[in-house]
Amino acid sequence: MTATATDSHRNGVDTAALFATLDAVKAQPEIARFQFRATNRWISGTHNRSTVDGFHGAKQDMAHEQPFELDADHPAVLVGRDHVPTPVEYLLHALAACLTAGIANVAAARGVTLTEVSSTVEGDIDLMGILGLADEVRNGYQQIRVHFALEGDDPARLRDLVDRSRARSAVFDVLTNGVPVAIDVSTS
Amino acid sequence: MTATATDSHRNGVDTAALFATLDAVKAQPEIARFQFRATNRWISGTHNRSTVDGFHGAKQDMAHEQPFELDADHPAVLVGRDHVPTPVEYLLHALAACLTAGIANVAAARGVTLTEVSSTVEGDIDLMGILGLADEVRNGYQQIRVHFALEGDDPARLRDLVDRSRARSAVFDVLTNGVPVAIDVSTS
Repeated sequence: MTATATDSHRNGVDTAALFATLDAVKAQPEIARFQFRATNRWISGTHNRSTVDGFHGAKQDMAHEQPFELDADHPAVLVGRDHVPTPVEYLLHALAACLTAGIANVAAARGVTLTEVSSTVEGDIDLMGILGLADEVRNGYQQIRVHFALEGDDPARLRDLVDRSRARSAVFDVLTNGVPVAIDVSTS
Repeated sequence: MTATATDSHRNGVDTAALFATLDAVKAQPEIARFQFRATNRWISGTHNRSTVDGFHGAKQDMAHEQPFELDADHPAVLVGRDHVPTPVEYLLHALAACLTAGIANVAAARGVTLTEVSSTVEGDIDLMGILGLADEVRNGYQQIRVHFALEGDDPARLRDLVDRSRARSAVFDVLTNGVPVAIDVSTS
């Protein structure tokens, strides 16, 4: 599949670059090994701030155009100051964002007309778990629901975009299948 | 355990409010059923924006002090514009933020002196998965590592904070154990 000059950009996706990336990775799979990173610092109470800057990929250390700062806190009803989103809301954003980017990429790659994508994400959580008041209640979300509304091509082609995006979404995979998380600590 | 006037705030955590919340939930467990929400809209290419505003809890619909907007995009090397963090970086932030808020809450509740908490989070991902080039490679992170550096009380008490926070972290639970995610689609 080769992009031509006339379809090298579609809905903001540089399809020529997308296919070039695919070809490059096929020729040299080790460039696909990435590492993303964040650093975080406690500010006060439940308020803390992450910085996202450097990452590794394509056999080199890289940096974003600029460092990004992301704050998190709890709402007042959960003993926070409510200045910024909660950690669990960032998870919902990550899920919607990953699936939506995938929908746009798949639409561009397959020549599907896409004019609008919006979504709502809901996550149910029973705080009896994290408050330590009920051992049988899990700490995290019990269920997450995503509703997508798409406009553009015919319905079957639009639904197919969502299926294909879900099948290749990094965040959907991590949230539904889990991932090993190792934690270590130094003190001073 | 009862908070007194002199220890009602510790390191920015309102311990009196924390214990009042625990007592309220013990008396009426249904107030602990929360639902967090995000809405997302595609902007262009891999760039999209979530809004985090309302949530449900304590038997009522509530709203943050103000709506928060969170953008996501891919870096240039992944066919994005690199204006904002990637979806998978938001996951790392959510994990660090949830564990750190928990460390601060546990320290306040247990009277452990805590002067600094910082962390680095790394996630390894092989893009052969999401690029659809190797079915045996998963789409998401293969492993996540968190390193915490704590200052304050003696090392054993500081390490205990991390253990207790991990044992009650909503994001750690979701990432390590997974959660059911239902997706539906409407088209027009």
